[in-house]
Amino acid sequence: MPKKRTEKKLVGLGEDVLKDIKQKKNPKIEIPIRSLSNVVYDEKTKSLTLGDKVSKRFFFNVAHAKKFMQTMMVAAFCKELLNEKIHTSLRDMYYNLKHTISNSDENTFDEQRESDPIVIDLEVALDVLREQLHLSADVRGRAVGNVTILDRGDTVNLAKLGSGGYAIPSNIEDIKFKKVNAKYILVVEKNAAFERLHEDKFWKKHNCVLIGAQGQAARGVRRLIQRLSNEFKLPVYVFCDSDPYGWYIYSVIKFGSMSLAHVSDRLGTPHARYIGLTISDIEKFGLKDFTIKTRDVDIKRAKDMMKYKWFQHPAWQKELKLLIKGKRKAELEALSGRGLRFMTEKYLPQKIKNKEFLP
Amino acid sequence: MPKKRTEKKLVGLGEDVLKDIKQKKNPKIEIPIRSLSNVVYDEKTKSLTLGDKVSKRFFFNVAHAKKFMQTMMVAAFCKELLNEKIHTSLRDMYYNLKHTISNSDENTFDEQRESDPIVIDLEVALDVLREQLHLSADVRGRAVGNVTILDRGDTVNLAKLGSGGYAIPSNIEDIKFKKVNAKYILVVEKNAAFERLHEDKFWKKHNCVLIGAQGQAARGVRRLIQRLSNEFKLPVYVFCDSDPYGWYIYSVIKFGSMSLAHVSDRLGTPHARYIGLTISDIEKFGLKDFTIKTRDVDIKRAKDMMKYKWFQHPAWQKELKLLIKGKRKAELEALSGRGLRFMTEKYLPQKIKNKEFLP
Repeated sequence: MPKKRTEKKLVGLGEDVLKDIKQKKNPKIEIPIRSLSNVVYDEKTKSLTLGDKVSKRFFFNVAHAKKFMQTMMVAAFCKELLNEKIHTSLRDMYYNLKHTISNSDENTFDEQRESDPIVIDLEVALDVLREQLHLSADVRGRAVGNVTILDRGDTVNLAKLGSGGYAIPSNIEDIKFKKVNAKYILVVEKNAAFERLHEDKFWKKHNCVLIGAQGQAARGVRRLIQRLSNEFKLPVYVFCDSDPYGWYIYSVIKFGSMSLAHVSDRLGTPHARYIGLTISDIEKFGLKDFTIKTRDVDIKRAKDMMKYKWFQHPAWQKELKLLIKGKRKAELEALSGRGLRFMTEKYLPQKIKNKEFLP
Repeated sequence: MPKKRTEKKLVGLGEDVLKDIKQKKNPKIEIPIRSLSNVVYDEKTKSLTLGDKVSKRFFFNVAHAKKFMQTMMVAAFCKELLNEKIHTSLRDMYYNLKHTISNSDENTFDEQRESDPIVIDLEVALDVLREQLHLSADVRGRAVGNVTILDRGDTVNLAKLGSGGYAIPSNIEDIKFKKVNAKYILVVEKNAAFERLHEDKFWKKHNCVLIGAQGQAARGVRRLIQRLSNEFKLPVYVFCDSDPYGWYIYSVIKFGSMSLAHVSDRLGTPHARYIGLTISDIEKFGLKDFTIKTRDVDIKRAKDMMKYKWFQHPAWQKELKLLIKGKRKAELEALSGRGLRFMTEKYLPQKIKNKEFLP
């Protein structure tokens, strides 16, 4: 039971501190460092992960004492959430924990930006997801396909949700997949493309699960992609704008992100592949008239990405170079220049048939 | 059949132009003016609406000719969408219509900001919703409750969608309500509050429909609120942050918005009432420790709102004055300062029981 495990870890944190106190030691909490200096790309697992640098937070240290107290408060709060079977947001937690310490004019927390990083600290220190600590993240994204899930007691068939689809929640941990009948998962960056594919019944014809991320994939979306593809051995194809931001969205789904490197193993999907758009597609699919001039920030980002270890594959280096040289980018909607159903009927089927994916 | 009606209006637009041509008149399109100078607040219907100023767009007029062509192109495109039974986004439409006019170096459209307003022009001129022209808007928001709908052939029970809920689509026109069993509709600005109420089964206990707007209500959300409340005579309570932005979100749901005044009759819900938060609530519910200092923009906005005709009710004037004077505002999450379930178990039930609504 993952819930019992999370509870045990929270209790363990408290017990370690108690042990220190009983032994008259300076109570401490060990927290792996998650600054960029400790983020490494693991070539073997194809994911961003944390190195082995660890920091210690001591109770009897003027520079640590307040953070130590805050860490204990957040941990106790999460334990309470688990006991009460209640989930909440970071902002609600902040308001709930904020108060003036009696006989002082010191607040427990002055700003939410003090409590947010503590949650990440606990996520790293205890090696759990914040969703397992019952702290929900932002929600965004929808899904449709031949997938039947059990979610909070309800059996939901994602093939029978009309035009709307299933609103992907923050917490995917407690969802059970009852029946999955699909050949692959298609993740679409933009809602307009999701709507097009949904209306054209692409997921029915091609028997896939269609997930609309609506921009950068929320944690719930990333976790859903990972669980679904791992538990049912489904390939994952990611479909984004042909620009550095779109490629970054893909890379986060696949490799993880630098700021959340400690959870790449639970939110990343290293076997995901990139189906498009690419700069090469512009020529190949006659999209030249529908491209956009890059902005300076695109070029800068592309140059940065060329150095990332997880973008070293020659195919990606080629695309990045093409973008930098040609100074043109293309959005998913550019495919509509070739006809509204070009994406559904030509582009995607051809790419999938010929296995034209980037790694 | 609303679809037939929309089609007829589009055809009518073309026929009028043809008639002008046959009679050797200068072809024209009449479009009600939708600048602020023509937006009026209708005290009787309690909604923002357009006045009677109309502009004429002529074909033989150097200043009008390009816009005339663009209007015809967009209208023809929408007719095609209806024929093809296909919906698309404004951006896809832009890419689809953009091309260089033969024997010239003139583009039909150079930027999307040229094609977007044409859609609104048509919406006004033909008195249809852009969704009826098959042009989808952004999607955002989710719904749960004892509501069974028929959506694109699927029967969806909004009470059986687990933690996720029903992702509200852009186009509500074709949705049929098969069964609705609820006493009222509760619209919540923020997702965290939606999640809290959903997890606490508030909508089950109080037999209401719970709608999460996730910020400013998308067109689909506004249309859903209106249709559901009108067709089933349900009161609507709106629950937002106690600050000018939250109150503005409420006012758009109720009265409509200035920029979309021409569709207030189809997107607005004049009988909606405001359940909270208010500045008075801060005192009444012991939220003082959980307020935030206003920013200059809040005060400026509040002062503007005091002048709006649709905020003249003494109860609103009082709240606006309290905010300006006290320089404090409160978010929905402030209620978590009193306990995570304070909102579900105390605040909302008390407000509803005592009918403590603002008009």
